[in-house]
Amino acid sequence: MSTEKCFAKGSAAPASVPEDHIRLYSMRFCPFAHRARLVLNAKGIKHETININLKDKPDWFLERNPLGLVPTLETPAGEVIYESPITCDYLDEVYPEKKLLPSSPYGKAQQKMMLEHFSKVTPYFYKIPTGRKNGDDVSGLEAELKEKFAKLNEDLVNKKTKFFGGDSITMIDYMMWPFFERLEIFELKHCLDGTPELKKWTECMMEDPAVKATTHSMDTYKAFYQSYVDGKPNYDLGL
Amino acid sequence: MSTEKCFAKGSAAPASVPEDHIRLYSMRFCPFAHRARLVLNAKGIKHETININLKDKPDWFLERNPLGLVPTLETPAGEVIYESPITCDYLDEVYPEKKLLPSSPYGKAQQKMMLEHFSKVTPYFYKIPTGRKNGDDVSGLEAELKEKFAKLNEDLVNKKTKFFGGDSITMIDYMMWPFFERLEIFELKHCLDGTPELKKWTECMMEDPAVKATTHSMDTYKAFYQSYVDGKPNYDLGL
Repeated sequence: MSTEKCFAKGSAAPASVPEDHIRLYSMRFCPFAHRARLVLNAKGIKHETININLKDKPDWFLERNPLGLVPTLETPAGEVIYESPITCDYLDEVYPEKKLLPSSPYGKAQQKMMLEHFSKVTPYFYKIPTGRKNGDDVSGLEAELKEKFAKLNEDLVNKKTKFFGGDSITMIDYMMWPFFERLEIFELKHCLDGTPELKKWTECMMEDPAVKATTHSMDTYKAFYQSYVDGKPNYDLGL
Repeated sequence: MSTEKCFAKGSAAPASVPEDHIRLYSMRFCPFAHRARLVLNAKGIKHETININLKDKPDWFLERNPLGLVPTLETPAGEVIYESPITCDYLDEVYPEKKLLPSSPYGKAQQKMMLEHFSKVTPYFYKIPTGRKNGDDVSGLEAELKEKFAKLNEDLVNKKTKFFGGDSITMIDYMMWPFFERLEIFELKHCLDGTPELKKWTECMMEDPAVKATTHSMDTYKAFYQSYVDGKPNYDLGL
């Protein structure tokens, strides 16, 4: 994990990417950047991490990625890749060690379809805390989220596997994990109560070395989240 | 192109997929299904098409794809694949004839990033006609669309290529095309006036055999669109 403080507007651009490395532009608490961090870690890819101040982005970062989003990858040849699933697929294709996507076209399509379904789950992790903050009744949204979790649970039951792509971790697990790691911060952990297989999956995930290597303590997560809610995200919290 | 009338709720399920074919569940006027039709056609893949009445879907279709969306593919082994980019990638990977995606991981990532950008353009093709119908002032939306077109134009200018992935058609062109084919129906053709390279691209696309083989006459498109706006889409129009 990078221990480098974040780069903000006005900072000097980092030197070019070292020949045998790939560079990740990240934010230490971003769940989307977390996906790429998991893949880099799981595959043992030599990389350097440049953390970005997302509230006050350096011009040199916006030149590389006009959308200004993390994760963004940069190769020694100056190739720039962004959008979390695209960065992760790229890493899996370029680095043959420990393939995370299935080799069969149908297996790959299945993972992409699962990710598409999951993309309808992620908005709840923002909508529910925001709603609560505004004093709204979020019980309807929580019920919907529980229904989505029930579907994921059913998927594991039907497959009879520990993970979503089989009995070992594959790409889809890493794509979903960052949001589950943050359930406690969002005060949504109780939503797992009716879905024992999915809960077991979260427990298996927490044993994974890449998950362990990319996590933060719950205290750090909570303190960052509070700073974020207060409109003053402390990107360097804990460094 | 399929000349089969669409299947509605209550219809008998089609027989199993012939051994040497792949089946496409489609709707003749759907731009997303059009993507898969273009790829099937460009690659010369033996396929059969089952058109679906999207207003009144057969139960056997919802059993295959609970989302009930087209395009959906089904293989003779009963594998089901949906979401237009996933179906198209699957077809390109399984059928080696005339590869539409680049072989390099970075080339693939570039196409995915372009598609991601384009996914922010497609909503305008719905928002503007709907706004007009409601009597709203859509000049702001039109200006935004023109700005998106200007970016696409700039992309072609910078690349100095006829198509978005080089001097021959690749996947990204087919992913974008169905929406441009419908510009006239949506009364948005004038939005191309300030973007000559993009306009030239549409002209090159219209010369492509797969584009020619999967199109409808403008009269048919317009009549279908009118029936759609009237809330009674005539899926079998022209058959």
